[in-house]
Amino acid sequence: MPATSDRKTPGANPGYRHRCARLDGVGLTLDCGAVLDDVTIAYETYGRLNEARSNAILVCHALTGDQYASGFNPVTGRAGWWSTMVGPGKVIDTDRYFVICQNVLGGCMGTTGPKEINPATGKPYGLDFPVITIADMVRAQALLLDHLGIGDLFCVIGGSMGGMQVLQWAISYPERVFSAVSIAAAARHSAQNIAFHEVGRQAIMADPQWMKGRYLDHGKVPRAGLAVARMAAHITYMSEAALHRKFGRALQDRERISYGFDADFQVESYLRYQGSNFVERFDANSYLYVTRAMDYFDIAAAHDGVLANAFIGTRTRFCILSFSSDWLFPTAESREVVHALNAAAANVSFLEVETDKGHDAFLLDEPEMFETLSGFLDGSAYQRGLGS
Amino acid sequence: MPATSDRKTPGANPGYRHRCARLDGVGLTLDCGAVLDDVTIAYETYGRLNEARSNAILVCHALTGDQYASGFNPVTGRAGWWSTMVGPGKVIDTDRYFVICQNVLGGCMGTTGPKEINPATGKPYGLDFPVITIADMVRAQALLLDHLGIGDLFCVIGGSMGGMQVLQWAISYPERVFSAVSIAAAARHSAQNIAFHEVGRQAIMADPQWMKGRYLDHGKVPRAGLAVARMAAHITYMSEAALHRKFGRALQDRERISYGFDADFQVESYLRYQGSNFVERFDANSYLYVTRAMDYFDIAAAHDGVLANAFIGTRTRFCILSFSSDWLFPTAESREVVHALNAAAANVSFLEVETDKGHDAFLLDEPEMFETLSGFLDGSAYQRGLGS
Repeated sequence: MPATSDRKTPGANPGYRHRCARLDGVGLTLDCGAVLDDVTIAYETYGRLNEARSNAILVCHALTGDQYASGFNPVTGRAGWWSTMVGPGKVIDTDRYFVICQNVLGGCMGTTGPKEINPATGKPYGLDFPVITIADMVRAQALLLDHLGIGDLFCVIGGSMGGMQVLQWAISYPERVFSAVSIAAAARHSAQNIAFHEVGRQAIMADPQWMKGRYLDHGKVPRAGLAVARMAAHITYMSEAALHRKFGRALQDRERISYGFDADFQVESYLRYQGSNFVERFDANSYLYVTRAMDYFDIAAAHDGVLANAFIGTRTRFCILSFSSDWLFPTAESREVVHALNAAAANVSFLEVETDKGHDAFLLDEPEMFETLSGFLDGSAYQRGLGS
Repeated sequence: MPATSDRKTPGANPGYRHRCARLDGVGLTLDCGAVLDDVTIAYETYGRLNEARSNAILVCHALTGDQYASGFNPVTGRAGWWSTMVGPGKVIDTDRYFVICQNVLGGCMGTTGPKEINPATGKPYGLDFPVITIADMVRAQALLLDHLGIGDLFCVIGGSMGGMQVLQWAISYPERVFSAVSIAAAARHSAQNIAFHEVGRQAIMADPQWMKGRYLDHGKVPRAGLAVARMAAHITYMSEAALHRKFGRALQDRERISYGFDADFQVESYLRYQGSNFVERFDANSYLYVTRAMDYFDIAAAHDGVLANAFIGTRTRFCILSFSSDWLFPTAESREVVHALNAAAANVSFLEVETDKGHDAFLLDEPEMFETLSGFLDGSAYQRGLGS
């Protein structure tokens, strides 16, 4: 087993060393046919693995997430992105479970991706990085589990793109997944979502600083394009109601409109901040690759067009959650997954959480989500012999 | 009365001369306080004004519309944008009514706007053009009516931003509006809509070819930024259902995904076409100004925060239409207008048209919309003494 190593990662916070597993000579074959000989996986763990190695939970992050699900994120200087959910005494209780979260393949927080060095050239991959899929991300996660000596997972859980990974886990490695929680996700990416991703990619590629993907070679960053991509995406993460409640037409630090193109409205100022802040922590090429992986996600297409076929014979216990105001991954798409699981005679719980917080609700303080997940995890733990 | 003149307009189709009214020395005072001494208004008319001058209908166009509501548009080489609605024997029957449509103030099809020559400098205005409002657009339309010798309108009608102008007409010049039809509009622009506009503006201003708005001086066009702005906006004009029906996850001219960043999906190809096509016919600075005018629109704010106050004492007959799948201007926002009109004891008809075509439905073949508007116009014509 290769040793876990510390390795300096280039990027927004160059002084920080992510916790990485260097998996040399693994020969990871991707859906596109390319093979990555050496793979580095940046990850974090929380809690302790029990002696039976039966209490591991894999947390899968969303498009712009990272391995810092809980605790302190040294890159952003803020709490981990799912600190409300993961921690001692939390729903995903790190006093009880061993939680693993890794930066996805193609990401930009230490795992092999377009900003890392291509061994063939000694320069960052850029667009020479092979195009990856959600299934490829899951393969890389399985490699990490092998590396850590963990056979199967008590649970795999995630929201949005993380929820896609959860479904893919249950399909690619059904024997390794005791329970699976997919939140605010879908079995395929919709035309509207592909369209929004395409706008973001076009914004990045239109930025002259992108330099056909070779900006890192020239010490440049396509900041403006990446910020616009983030701004457009960010609108889709919130509901109209949430935007209205949070901002309405309130003005930003002024008594009246300026008759100009400054950020008169708070919602404009907020979006601009979201855009410029994102550029500090995310790589533009990673954004292209990870959005593309989501666009390509289509479980049924890989199973003769029949979604249920993907789950035939599964023994995994599923929990599917959606949010009533999520228009990016609407409840109807979760229901399709539930119907397919039912058709495959799988064990599945489903809940649509009533909330006006939109897609981002999976990251927020949603008591109904917490209660449902607590109950589901407790029940599964009992079945797994982890105590009630 | 100044003469109507032909004038050569710079832009996408420099050979074409728009039909223009040059209104010199009119001193148009704008909401921002600036005064435009000379105003040129590009417009088209369809049908004949009757002797009593009582059969005029003003059609107001949307954000990216123009004066070519019907017939042939010489700039795009295609039929006018509302040819389904306006023409001989159509709902807005040009055998019966005299239809006027003008390019809005701040537009880019011949009416005074940021791409026209600033008399003070001899160069295109660019960002020296004053920021305008929907009320300013309506003032410019009233100037055209004065120029044409038309006192009052039998009807003013429009969708989206056109519907905003309709409401503003009824408020600014109640005595000049016999009937008013506002389709897929609202009494104020929502936080979400401001956010989408801000993304588009940031995309334009991030393009180095924008050159702080002075691109025309340098013979440049911020094509990439304007195309991204159009792509983002275009998604909002359609419903998820319409996108799914039209494209789903169908691939573009290929059997399987390419594992690359080309337009694999038809929806990507379609959006790219929408973006690049738009750049040929629209001016980037106009896009900034006209979106800003929409953002600033807030009738209640100008009436002590009470929407109904705007309509007190009105004698105009109103018809308000919305579309069930329009998420840009959802039905709830039309209902607010209807409630305010009811509170002001106005004469108002309201219909939510059941359709899955989204916001763009007002431009499309919607039989329920046609029937409702036919009935409304016939009834109003009867009241106006124009025959049934």
